[in-house]
Amino acid sequence: MSKITIPEIQEILDAELPLVNILGCAIEDVGAGRCTVRMAFKPELIRPGGTIAGPATMALADLAMYVVVLSLVGRVELAVTTNLNINFLRKPGPADMIAHGRILKRGKRLAVAEVELFSDGAPDDMVAHVTGTYSIPSQEGGN
Amino acid sequence: MSKITIPEIQEILDAELPLVNILGCAIEDVGAGRCTVRMAFKPELIRPGGTIAGPATMALADLAMYVVVLSLVGRVELAVTTNLNINFLRKPGPADMIAHGRILKRGKRLAVAEVELFSDGAPDDMVAHVTGTYSIPSQEGGN
Amino acid sequence: MSKITIPEIQEILDAELPLVNILGCAIEDVGAGRCTVRMAFKPELIRPGGTIAGPATMALADLAMYVVVLSLVGRVELAVTTNLNINFLRKPGPADMIAHGRILKRGKRLAVAEVELFSDGAPDDMVAHVTGTYSIPSQEGGN
Amino acid sequence: MSKITIPEIQEILDAELPLVNILGCAIEDVGAGRCTVRMAFKPELIRPGGTIAGPATMALADLAMYVVVLSLVGRVELAVTTNLNINFLRKPGPADMIAHGRILKRGKRLAVAEVELFSDGAPDDMVAHVTGTYSIPSQEGGN
Repeated sequence: MSKITIPEIQEILDAELPLVNILGCAIEDVGAGRCTVRMAFKPELIRPGGTIAGPATMALADLAMYVVVLSLVGRVELAVTTNLNINFLRKPGPADMIAHGRILKRGKRLAVAEVELFSDGAPDDMVAHVTGTYSIPSQEGGN
Repeated sequence: MSKITIPEIQEILDAELPLVNILGCAIEDVGAGRCTVRMAFKPELIRPGGTIAGPATMALADLAMYVVVLSLVGRVELAVTTNLNINFLRKPGPADMIAHGRILKRGKRLAVAEVELFSDGAPDDMVAHVTGTYSIPSQEGGN
Repeated sequence: MSKITIPEIQEILDAELPLVNILGCAIEDVGAGRCTVRMAFKPELIRPGGTIAGPATMALADLAMYVVVLSLVGRVELAVTTNLNINFLRKPGPADMIAHGRILKRGKRLAVAEVELFSDGAPDDMVAHVTGTYSIPSQEGGN
Repeated sequence: MSKITIPEIQEILDAELPLVNILGCAIEDVGAGRCTVRMAFKPELIRPGGTIAGPATMALADLAMYVVVLSLVGRVELAVTTNLNINFLRKPGPADMIAHGRILKRGKRLAVAEVELFSDGAPDDMVAHVTGTYSIPSQEGGN
């Protein structure tokens, strides 16, 4: 079971992550070590070629990793990304984007997660694949 | 010499990359295979811990790579990121962020670039390091 | 169906990839866009801590990506890695290592693959996760 | 000044990293947070196309990162790679390969390093670029 609820995550996003609301991301589902996050399509997300800008896709993926990590450690807002790697696979059209995150490994101080991203309605054609590492702060601090 | 001027890049950003303007990025300098881009600090960029959100940093780095690529190939708006890897090194405080991009390799179809990111006024403490690949479209299209 | 058979791959490895034989890798299974490759444990693969050296793990993963790509394009020996990203998740003990590769996207010129690596007998504890890109040469050459 | 000498590193390699000797790597220079490592060319390193196999290049880069980390923390053999990202830029011919490593950030528990790789005699044409993270074990253990 997730150690954090959707309303609790939403509270963090509203209070402390303005960029996520500017982009229009919403948590759809969260379980222990997994989540689904949606980014609603809007014209501001477009880049040349009529596709969604890479940075918007990366922001969605990073949020999904954050949610996956909080689902395991609870309300530790100060968990931070230390590494993110993204492969852009197909150009997503003007539609909502769906991110499915899952944990690959949870250590004491580091958690590694994977995110698969799709355009809404096209679940067979992954548009981007992300792996990344979050650092989980301890009492002593530092990493 | 760069194959594209700062006003020409700005024209692309204004017309086709609304996210860049939302984030407040500006091209400071561009040469053949290198550039400097600045992201002005504003409260919307903050994340828990009082530091700049990772996605904003990634957006700035991706823009710097785009500028580096266009500096070599000219106005080819449809050049797209295929891979981006970022290591977050230090938590940037509430200040402008500066990205220095340079080309590592320009091939016919792929260009690899590197971006070093700093907080304005702290040129000795890199806050993030990025490498990435852009695909340069050809007449036949596809990659 | 795979466009290359295990004996055909083995022929390439024997003739042109001596390192793979030094490391003791063998193709166990190949289908269209997927494969399983095994690296037999031997003392030469060890690093401090009694675990398998990272470079041996990376070599196995790179081979699995190569096999996945050849399964889709046939005998194109000159396909080359352009990018590889690996996250080491758990320290593998002194046992065979198993790599499961699958294609994420096959484009005209680039193929992106994912490899999940396990210690033999511990299929629930992924020891490393890899994504990477192969460049598929065309008639004109170059990338 | 480096916290470890070349003979001390060589002692670790000889005793505990047989793969490095199989590949023929030698430390040429080490300072605080930087190093140069050479991999002597030999036919076993070749892959189709007459170029040096990617896994050999990755092994050399990983060793250079290890040396950079030990130069800062001293003889902590159990430092391990948690992430490595490589971009292959040009196909190295049949020559020695030279790796220049440098630290990007040393934290308490994580160190991030960068490695630039060249063919001997061609210092202007980088053949591969690597970034990676090492985990530095603490008294409590785990990461």
